[in-house]
Amino acid sequence: MKQPACFAQERRARGPMSPSIYAVILAGGSGERFWPLSRRTLPKQLLPLVDGRSLLEATIDRLDGLVPPERILVLTNAEIEWAVRGLCPSIPPRNVLVEPAKRDTAAAVALAAGWVCKQDPAATMCILSADHLIRNADAFRTDLRNAAEAAASGALVTFGIRPTWACPGYGYIETGDEIAAGDGRTTFHQALRFREKPNAELAESFLREGCFLWNAGIFVWSVHSIISEFNRHFPELAAFIARVHETPELDALLGAEFATLPRISIDYAIMEKAHEVWVAAAGFDWDDLGGWPSLARYLAADEHGNACNGPMTVQESSGNMVHAPANTHVALLGVNDLIVVQSGDALLICNRHEAERIKDIVKRLPPELQ
Amino acid sequence: MKQPACFAQERRARGPMSPSIYAVILAGGSGERFWPLSRRTLPKQLLPLVDGRSLLEATIDRLDGLVPPERILVLTNAEIEWAVRGLCPSIPPRNVLVEPAKRDTAAAVALAAGWVCKQDPAATMCILSADHLIRNADAFRTDLRNAAEAAASGALVTFGIRPTWACPGYGYIETGDEIAAGDGRTTFHQALRFREKPNAELAESFLREGCFLWNAGIFVWSVHSIISEFNRHFPELAAFIARVHETPELDALLGAEFATLPRISIDYAIMEKAHEVWVAAAGFDWDDLGGWPSLARYLAADEHGNACNGPMTVQESSGNMVHAPANTHVALLGVNDLIVVQSGDALLICNRHEAERIKDIVKRLPPELQ
Repeated sequence: MKQPACFAQERRARGPMSPSIYAVILAGGSGERFWPLSRRTLPKQLLPLVDGRSLLEATIDRLDGLVPPERILVLTNAEIEWAVRGLCPSIPPRNVLVEPAKRDTAAAVALAAGWVCKQDPAATMCILSADHLIRNADAFRTDLRNAAEAAASGALVTFGIRPTWACPGYGYIETGDEIAAGDGRTTFHQALRFREKPNAELAESFLREGCFLWNAGIFVWSVHSIISEFNRHFPELAAFIARVHETPELDALLGAEFATLPRISIDYAIMEKAHEVWVAAAGFDWDDLGGWPSLARYLAADEHGNACNGPMTVQESSGNMVHAPANTHVALLGVNDLIVVQSGDALLICNRHEAERIKDIVKRLPPELQ
Repeated sequence: MKQPACFAQERRARGPMSPSIYAVILAGGSGERFWPLSRRTLPKQLLPLVDGRSLLEATIDRLDGLVPPERILVLTNAEIEWAVRGLCPSIPPRNVLVEPAKRDTAAAVALAAGWVCKQDPAATMCILSADHLIRNADAFRTDLRNAAEAAASGALVTFGIRPTWACPGYGYIETGDEIAAGDGRTTFHQALRFREKPNAELAESFLREGCFLWNAGIFVWSVHSIISEFNRHFPELAAFIARVHETPELDALLGAEFATLPRISIDYAIMEKAHEVWVAAAGFDWDDLGGWPSLARYLAADEHGNACNGPMTVQESSGNMVHAPANTHVALLGVNDLIVVQSGDALLICNRHEAERIKDIVKRLPPELQ
């Protein structure tokens, strides 16, 4: 298989200056877990869940001073394209790409790699999610800058989060030897193994052993390195990268080909197979806001753990989380451990310990309510 | 004390024809128990709680064929006057009287007696509440007609409801000998004693003994009889009746005097003392809709006792009652025995077994939300 032409140019472009950093924001998620506030056409990353701004806007703002808007690429889908564009007025319109079918992260990374390579074959790419909550932007930028420097070695860098509990809902990365890279403010390790979502017992042992980090799904690598790894481990997607790089008609290419690409995550397709993978231990706070119970952490709560995004009167109630329209007064009387969400034409009342199953009930709703 | 002049006329007016029946509808209640659907300015009787019509409208409609609109008197208060008038387009505007202060039922009955006496001193009066749910209108009219006939004897007739459980929230009437009156389709007894809200144990014994009926607060008597009883037992209110009867400026009289009248119920002031009181055992269904749990009986429920006034998707939930705006879809997940009410700018989530205390939490709310 022929390598994209960018490789020949890449070495020439690399000079004494640090390579340009491009940020790729994956903004195509659906997020039934925040129903009824989130809907199919208004997923989690578009909602002002915390600090009064959407997670997508916060993701872009967080890059301020590190990646200018013209080097930010946003990948989304047709259902939410216009909402996404509306929240990204600083991003050049041509930098918002619409995936014409729902594929997994490997296809998205391949598309982004081809697009970035065309702009600057010597670039470093960061892959970010639009639906993570990261509030310490300074620490985030420091880590990202260090990871970009580390990636110049050719390694694929993935971010790991120090686990605070034995969460069975995340993937884990087993870390090996420490590696000196960057300005010393970010800790890097060899990545020994990727472990998919463990059972509770295994998660406990990961926590005890101390050498496992949560897989945050944030990656940094040079365009050259990631394309090389696609060439080595996933020629089908490498060929797609080459076509993205070469086509004068990207939309037409995506319309014709994207839906035919394999559904596979970048972890499975590349990270678990790549030769040199480093893990940066995140120095920033991180929360993937997996659902209403996790959001409760960011709402002011009374002394009995009742949290609400607006005014509330409480009597003999504890552990409740309520999200209601801004002008709504909530009254709780003798109730415990509920999640109550009023939004638009829907009202959810859910046992807090059953929140994982909101996505199941959403599937049973009429399509126009999903 | 001088008797109102109407007494002299009354005997002359009575002829072989049955006396005219006037209906007095007490429509001044507040009803925090249905908060947040009910508010201070939108009490229970104005809400379309059952069958899509307000209880006040249903109360007026129920009189159709028995009492024409010009013989219906509606008593209300200034806060809800215009809402009441809006729901009573068939009632002549002069038949809606506004009580300028909150007094109990004795003052309201006195006002009504004076007003009716002025229209027709030979009339029979029924006292009805605007916030009772009675769906069998035919049986209601039969009973009312029979009670009006019975009242021609001079007795004060009160309606009793056969208790279906040992409710401690109602007053009870102990019944004595049966009395033949009316067309035989309504059963009358001597009223032996009025018993205020009993404790649970006493209520159980009332139910066992079988001779106690719930006091429905529905009364029928001749204008002559009730004024005579006021003269005998409550001269202060009898004097007020006389002034209502004589004044050419009723609004001015009410403004000057109504707030000075005693706060006392008609049961305490008259019924417990009157010489001849009969109880009609209601042949109609009756529910005073004391709060959300009682309303649940009139909503369609699924096989797990979940009732909602609109569309609902349920998973592992039971015994819940939800009232939401018409265009709202409700989802219940793993919750039991809740009352959830979304209305306007408020959202209530309440343990079903604590519903009695909704009125307490309402008192703690900002006034504009009450």
